[in-house]
Amino acid sequence: MSGGARFITLEGIEGAGKSTLAATLATALEVRGQIVRTTREPGGTALAERIRDLVLQRDAETVAPEAETLLMFAARRIHLDNLVRPALARGEWVICDRFTDATRAYQGGGRGIDAAWIETLATAVQAGLEPGLTLLLDLPVELGLARAARRRGASGARIDRFEAETVAFFTRVRARYLEIARAAPQRVCVIDASATPETVQRAALAALERLR
Amino acid sequence: MSGGARFITLEGIEGAGKSTLAATLATALEVRGQIVRTTREPGGTALAERIRDLVLQRDAETVAPEAETLLMFAARRIHLDNLVRPALARGEWVICDRFTDATRAYQGGGRGIDAAWIETLATAVQAGLEPGLTLLLDLPVELGLARAARRRGASGARIDRFEAETVAFFTRVRARYLEIARAAPQRVCVIDASATPETVQRAALAALERLR
Repeated sequence: MSGGARFITLEGIEGAGKSTLAATLATALEVRGQIVRTTREPGGTALAERIRDLVLQRDAETVAPEAETLLMFAARRIHLDNLVRPALARGEWVICDRFTDATRAYQGGGRGIDAAWIETLATAVQAGLEPGLTLLLDLPVELGLARAARRRGASGARIDRFEAETVAFFTRVRARYLEIARAAPQRVCVIDASATPETVQRAALAALERLR
Repeated sequence: MSGGARFITLEGIEGAGKSTLAATLATALEVRGQIVRTTREPGGTALAERIRDLVLQRDAETVAPEAETLLMFAARRIHLDNLVRPALARGEWVICDRFTDATRAYQGGGRGIDAAWIETLATAVQAGLEPGLTLLLDLPVELGLARAARRRGASGARIDRFEAETVAFFTRVRARYLEIARAAPQRVCVIDASATPETVQRAALAALERLR
């Protein structure tokens, strides 16, 4: 597992509740005396966040799915080298909102990028590092989008290139996420994110307990 | 050639004289009534130039050769989709300062990135588009670096991540460029860039003439 046991990734479509859960998990580990870094992709470091801005922003220029995929993996490598690996090497935990499964689901499932090409990039970029646990927060697309729209309405944030996508797009993303989980049941734990926050938290903490 | 006959790329290490030659070639084509776009990589469009800034800037964060290569190809795809292909489709000529051969030479030869991995990226990003002609301005590394240092001294520009490299690095880059030229003699014309500007221009214009 190349030191990745303490590397936890959270996955799911918009509105699945990843950010809330990341904070809950971090607290649960901290009360046990662990040091926890919560971070996100794309982004997580100053340089990688600049790539995030490029790739999420709706722009006058065309960004082909291939370019989007390359930017995601470039940001990922910078994030791994400058934040994730150093933290793991110091014995800390890393909880990351989205990782390579998101590229598989969004660029692969959503945009139709060849799955084998994505794996070629993942192999070179991750260089053996895999999450010890991935929590996939699964919920019906319409429910997730309604939650995300409510949150955006409250914050007044501008819609990004992914949020502008259709229900059909997110349906493909969700289906690919579930395929990934079926293919890697040891690593990926699927949690019903349409349940109450308390139920979701209990399921996530139980998965974390099994990891230790 | 997928409409790439009018797509000319200029390659070579620092101080080889690419920019000067690009202007000469553009003028030569324009006096014959052609419309010419001169551009550069990484960059060439507003979005791709933002990636250029990221990748060239010396930063506190590590940018692994893999991340650098991914950023180069992401910028390339954006440049192709938003500038190069539309210009070629309108019947214009495109003269581009650096293209995929630079990635092969700098990231492959210079930084040791696997050549087969670079070709996997090139295939996905270029989607069949190849330059009709590549002019490789070849000169001894020490001479190129001395010229580049003189130019930098005059402009007061800050040194970038490549300019900060060693003679050994540029020697590997030059060697890889020459290998590329030997493997693709139909496309790549090697020009002795240690000659006088007039001799270099004559050789380049002769190569252009053979293309038409």
